[in-house]
Amino acid sequence: MLNLPRTIEWINGKVRLINQLELPHKLEYIETDDWLRLVETIRKMEIRGAPAIGVAAAFSMALAAQRIKARALNEALNELAKCAEVIKATRPTAVNLAWAVDRVLTAARTATSLDELKEKTLEAALKVQQMDEEANRKIGELGEKLIDDGDTVMTVCNAGSLATSYYGTATAPIYLAHERGKRVSVIALETRPYLQGARLTAWELSRAGINVKVITDNAIGIVLQKHHIDLIITGADRITRKGYVANKVGTYPLALLAKEHSVPFYVAAPTSTFDLSIETGEEIPIEERPSDEVVYIFGRRITPEGVEAIYYAFDVTPPKLISGIITEKGIIYPPYEKSIRHLFSV
Amino acid sequence: MLNLPRTIEWINGKVRLINQLELPHKLEYIETDDWLRLVETIRKMEIRGAPAIGVAAAFSMALAAQRIKARALNEALNELAKCAEVIKATRPTAVNLAWAVDRVLTAARTATSLDELKEKTLEAALKVQQMDEEANRKIGELGEKLIDDGDTVMTVCNAGSLATSYYGTATAPIYLAHERGKRVSVIALETRPYLQGARLTAWELSRAGINVKVITDNAIGIVLQKHHIDLIITGADRITRKGYVANKVGTYPLALLAKEHSVPFYVAAPTSTFDLSIETGEEIPIEERPSDEVVYIFGRRITPEGVEAIYYAFDVTPPKLISGIITEKGIIYPPYEKSIRHLFSV
Repeated sequence: MLNLPRTIEWINGKVRLINQLELPHKLEYIETDDWLRLVETIRKMEIRGAPAIGVAAAFSMALAAQRIKARALNEALNELAKCAEVIKATRPTAVNLAWAVDRVLTAARTATSLDELKEKTLEAALKVQQMDEEANRKIGELGEKLIDDGDTVMTVCNAGSLATSYYGTATAPIYLAHERGKRVSVIALETRPYLQGARLTAWELSRAGINVKVITDNAIGIVLQKHHIDLIITGADRITRKGYVANKVGTYPLALLAKEHSVPFYVAAPTSTFDLSIETGEEIPIEERPSDEVVYIFGRRITPEGVEAIYYAFDVTPPKLISGIITEKGIIYPPYEKSIRHLFSV
Repeated sequence: MLNLPRTIEWINGKVRLINQLELPHKLEYIETDDWLRLVETIRKMEIRGAPAIGVAAAFSMALAAQRIKARALNEALNELAKCAEVIKATRPTAVNLAWAVDRVLTAARTATSLDELKEKTLEAALKVQQMDEEANRKIGELGEKLIDDGDTVMTVCNAGSLATSYYGTATAPIYLAHERGKRVSVIALETRPYLQGARLTAWELSRAGINVKVITDNAIGIVLQKHHIDLIITGADRITRKGYVANKVGTYPLALLAKEHSVPFYVAAPTSTFDLSIETGEEIPIEERPSDEVVYIFGRRITPEGVEAIYYAFDVTPPKLISGIITEKGIIYPPYEKSIRHLFSV
């Protein structure tokens, strides 16, 4: 077991989660039984990371179901379907969110009474969390083989334990390699504007006893020029049928540099991150967020008044730059159109 | 004339310069007749930008000469040579600094009296400033032809008027295109950790009436995926005989992406930026700065205690990624080994 607290948990009809906006300086929890408050934690990015917001979304559904006002089962299902729409509207890029909400809604639809509806939604939500943790464990097992003793691994943003129920996606192989006695060093991109790399990845890796250093996002070139990097692992927010990967902004430049410097570039993601309904990167909705989130740092404006920022929260890495995708069902390799089809047909 | 104040000036035996650490919120000047205080402005980055620190270094020599204590010419020259070493030690990557100091020292060595030594150093220092401004004007004239009406230009850090005596290097073509009635939009990379793009480039361009937007450094990939960028122009801190360009960290990833997206990538720099004594990028000393400059933003720590940053202030762009180099003597093209040799043999 890692020296890390759980990101989000269901405890006696309430949800408790780490307020990630307070890290790395304060480990503070938010506890709520109000589904709208939980939805707000996704919108405000108190919780973030594709798998973790999937779990938070599933728990939002479960909380909503517990408080449902309708007396008839049919009305209750309609009410829950409306909640589902509200939850799905919080963040557009990560597909896990919609996937988790739909799973819970589907489970609710099998209920034959109001009591059963509450039971089934909670059961389905807890299952989403359990599946996430198990998937990450398997990703860790498979990915750990890519890491040798003494390796230096780079990662962007936080696809760590904090981005999931536990273990993380990109970090799972690192944690497991560390547990098995391999010496691993990590270089984390700070990841402006939210600084998830500096705040979250650095926090959880150092807490788990792993040597981690931070770089500014623009340092990827010189670090690959000056340092020997053995492996890059990132997470993913959505992967298309042809292997285009939407992930935190900055992933694509890192992948392009990795190719140029012949450093293996792997994506770690559970199969729930795949969206087989679309083919290419252009079809993925890329979330645009407010200029102010870039232009103010700790309440201080960094640009002159009147100069605004363009802020996309994600970018798209084309399959030609990806050495492999580590899923809980196996590591897949190019050509991705074929290996992804195979992954889902088994 | 641009709606911009001069970056650094010699006024009645004193040097007055803009304190760039206070921008964009406050236009504050530092005024001093103490050469060591002026040297400190370079070290503290109150002034920065390869050509501007060249001018500040030249003025530091002139101030030092005015206050020289030695009575014999020979001793005075020795004293000045020691000052030259102190000034050169401030920042290692930009070659303009050493170039400017050596020019002033060479002029001082032609003096036949102490009075003449003071005169000649000041004259040489003012000449460095004048040459810089003239070079930028010519870079503007030549580079302006690369910009069409309606173009969007990207740039990194600040190779603007604030990085030089006036006009800037990368910005000179933009200012001239704007003056000639072409509509130009600029996307500036914020450039962590000092945020020169967000603070300085945004300040001077918007003040000059040019439409500018800022992006985080990791957004270069998605912006090239989503927006039509016509041209990228950056400055340079040192250019080798084979055309390797050291410039602000983040330039190399931008150049690699430009190549991938077929966007012309130009470097703008006066001939004083070339260092013909070296061939390749590995020979350029890359300044490493303290972790704290990355890890603290506005006095607040962004990483957990104990997690430090790796901070190189520059990176190296290989010649294969550079469409052309705009100098005051003409725009040169690949193969650079040949075109650079030609540039300096004329």
